[in-house]
Amino acid sequence: MAKQLNAMGAEVIKRIAVGDEKNAILHTLNTSLKEASIVLITGGLGPTADDITKPLLCDYFGGKMVTNQEALENVKRIFNRRNLPLLEVNLKQAEVPDVCVVLQNPKGTAPGMWFEKDEKVIVAMPGVPHEMMAIMESGVLPALEKRIPKEEIVHRNILTAGLGESFLAARIEAIEKALPPNIKLAYLPGNWMVKLRLTGKGKDAKALTLLVEKFQQQIAEALEAFVIVLEDERLEKILYRDFVALKKTLAIAESCTGGYISHTLTQVDGSSHYFLGGIVSYDASVKENSLSIPKETILQHGTVSEEVTKQMAKQVRLQMKSDIGFGITGWLSQYTDGEINPDAGTVWMAVCDDKMVKTKKFRFTYDRIWNKEVALQMALVLLWKFIHGKEN
Amino acid sequence: MAKQLNAMGAEVIKRIAVGDEKNAILHTLNTSLKEASIVLITGGLGPTADDITKPLLCDYFGGKMVTNQEALENVKRIFNRRNLPLLEVNLKQAEVPDVCVVLQNPKGTAPGMWFEKDEKVIVAMPGVPHEMMAIMESGVLPALEKRIPKEEIVHRNILTAGLGESFLAARIEAIEKALPPNIKLAYLPGNWMVKLRLTGKGKDAKALTLLVEKFQQQIAEALEAFVIVLEDERLEKILYRDFVALKKTLAIAESCTGGYISHTLTQVDGSSHYFLGGIVSYDASVKENSLSIPKETILQHGTVSEEVTKQMAKQVRLQMKSDIGFGITGWLSQYTDGEINPDAGTVWMAVCDDKMVKTKKFRFTYDRIWNKEVALQMALVLLWKFIHGKEN
Repeated sequence: MAKQLNAMGAEVIKRIAVGDEKNAILHTLNTSLKEASIVLITGGLGPTADDITKPLLCDYFGGKMVTNQEALENVKRIFNRRNLPLLEVNLKQAEVPDVCVVLQNPKGTAPGMWFEKDEKVIVAMPGVPHEMMAIMESGVLPALEKRIPKEEIVHRNILTAGLGESFLAARIEAIEKALPPNIKLAYLPGNWMVKLRLTGKGKDAKALTLLVEKFQQQIAEALEAFVIVLEDERLEKILYRDFVALKKTLAIAESCTGGYISHTLTQVDGSSHYFLGGIVSYDASVKENSLSIPKETILQHGTVSEEVTKQMAKQVRLQMKSDIGFGITGWLSQYTDGEINPDAGTVWMAVCDDKMVKTKKFRFTYDRIWNKEVALQMALVLLWKFIHGKEN
Repeated sequence: MAKQLNAMGAEVIKRIAVGDEKNAILHTLNTSLKEASIVLITGGLGPTADDITKPLLCDYFGGKMVTNQEALENVKRIFNRRNLPLLEVNLKQAEVPDVCVVLQNPKGTAPGMWFEKDEKVIVAMPGVPHEMMAIMESGVLPALEKRIPKEEIVHRNILTAGLGESFLAARIEAIEKALPPNIKLAYLPGNWMVKLRLTGKGKDAKALTLLVEKFQQQIAEALEAFVIVLEDERLEKILYRDFVALKKTLAIAESCTGGYISHTLTQVDGSSHYFLGGIVSYDASVKENSLSIPKETILQHGTVSEEVTKQMAKQVRLQMKSDIGFGITGWLSQYTDGEINPDAGTVWMAVCDDKMVKTKKFRFTYDRIWNKEVALQMALVLLWKFIHGKEN
């Protein structure tokens, strides 16, 4: 919601989460209406007794409940399609306060409700994410767009890896000081990477874009090799685009990340055009049974080793007949069977094609879950560097 | 934070997200202090120019910045361990307002700060999750515990699958109406499952627990076969516990979920004790090359079919020498290569051991990402039912 609202020039000043508790909801509604001209609410519109938002809003705006025919047809259609009997309580989903404009819900039974009071707008939507998104897109955003005074907002990003935020800031100190007051720079650190985000505001979209992009270029040049990409796009989407453009295919063998890299790559629609598949060799036996790595190699070098990781990348590439192979092994937990593991956080990665294999060793310092996150991101960076012929 | 606070009897009335903007932070601080006796703040303590919370709090409480020796030693130790030079700006991380109690940060450079004003407590912590958690555990929670009037809070859950919330509510209407005012029932729907959560409040922990558990039992009996578990624990943790207890091992072959099931199972510490590994056969060729499913079988039945899914479960079990094998294929996207897919949402799953194979077909109705979520949860439910000898 915030992203869409931001893009249309609505400043999101606050996000508040509040329980299904009458006084807390009323208090939040009152204080929010003092600060903001638009208040969007999600959740509490369902059919069970803990869903109190709809009657509460009806009271608040002094209305009474009436059945909305179009919403009723929608409820009947949904239950009919699912072959479910209609309960009394489900029919109630089509009841709405008579003081609101009803926003039909194409993905569920609870309609959205648009209220106005003292020139302020209050919209209630269901909490189920895809239902909320459908109502936002079809009903809320088009109507809000007409009310919001047009201010152009331009975001530009510089995604970096390999340098902490204070070192990045030191390198671009002069550029940051030269930024005009209508352009802000934010440092968004996470997972061993830092995203720098420039946000410009102004009246003239074209001039603003040129200005923000000028600073983006200056920063990118000052940070040189630490820059990965300038788009505001997740790395898995960039990999999809670049692999497809290069007409290369990929197969991966994951040990410590347990399928997380495959999962992330396949979150992108169309990833089947380059991602063939993977082997999750969580147990050492799988490295022998499914990746044909000789027991002797594993015993000689250890499961978490440059040699085994190399073999994983090579073997999965050969087996799945892909252009690029990737392998990863490591110790993510601080403990192994209750004992402190002195090698905790050590992760090896390998990428190969038919000509060469590149490896890299990392030492992460977080807990198991966080180490997995960072390993994922570093794996995506490594893949990106490999297909673009950049140094690790 | 909310979970920990809830458990110690602190009622979390609101969660607010606000940008790095001076007036917005001040306004939020003022209104929050009117409503709450404790305000916890995260983020904005970093070394770059967009981190404004520390100087803002220093002004707000009328203090001046001083270097904290212990925090300074901590910063030096961290940079030394990482072999990084210390910049001026990093030393500033050890500066704190002289009107706060410093809460040392065992995981990072920015210390936490504990302020008091008019008998209210305001604590600022860094925004990086594992740093926040470390300071909460070592500094904030123990100190808060002493201030919070003791009220016992007991939560008990009933996780269900297979019935929508309105149908569940209809089945337990009489029980819900009989709940005393100090016990609340919430319906938490998501991913084709509904979690019912009872929350009881009272003075006598033992009597309260007995009472809440009595209602939990009543609800569980009324819902019979739709109940999966009564613990408040993620299914992957329950599977870990049950597989280990049964001394069974697992291998899985994933197509449409692209590694998500493996990833989720391996989020649990100790999962290597039962989860051997998996094959992500995203492209059809991998089903032949890595799972030895004959091309003819795939051509005859189609990749998304009961037969191919069965073969995936059987083959991965044989190849990885596990007790249980699991397979999943499906069409998650509404579109295949830009064309509407009439079979979108169709997912087949199979589970097998050495004696039998069980299959189940699903038809999910969401988008690609959401369908993947639901498929994951249904896969975990199916595995749980299989090892417990329950009907699909």
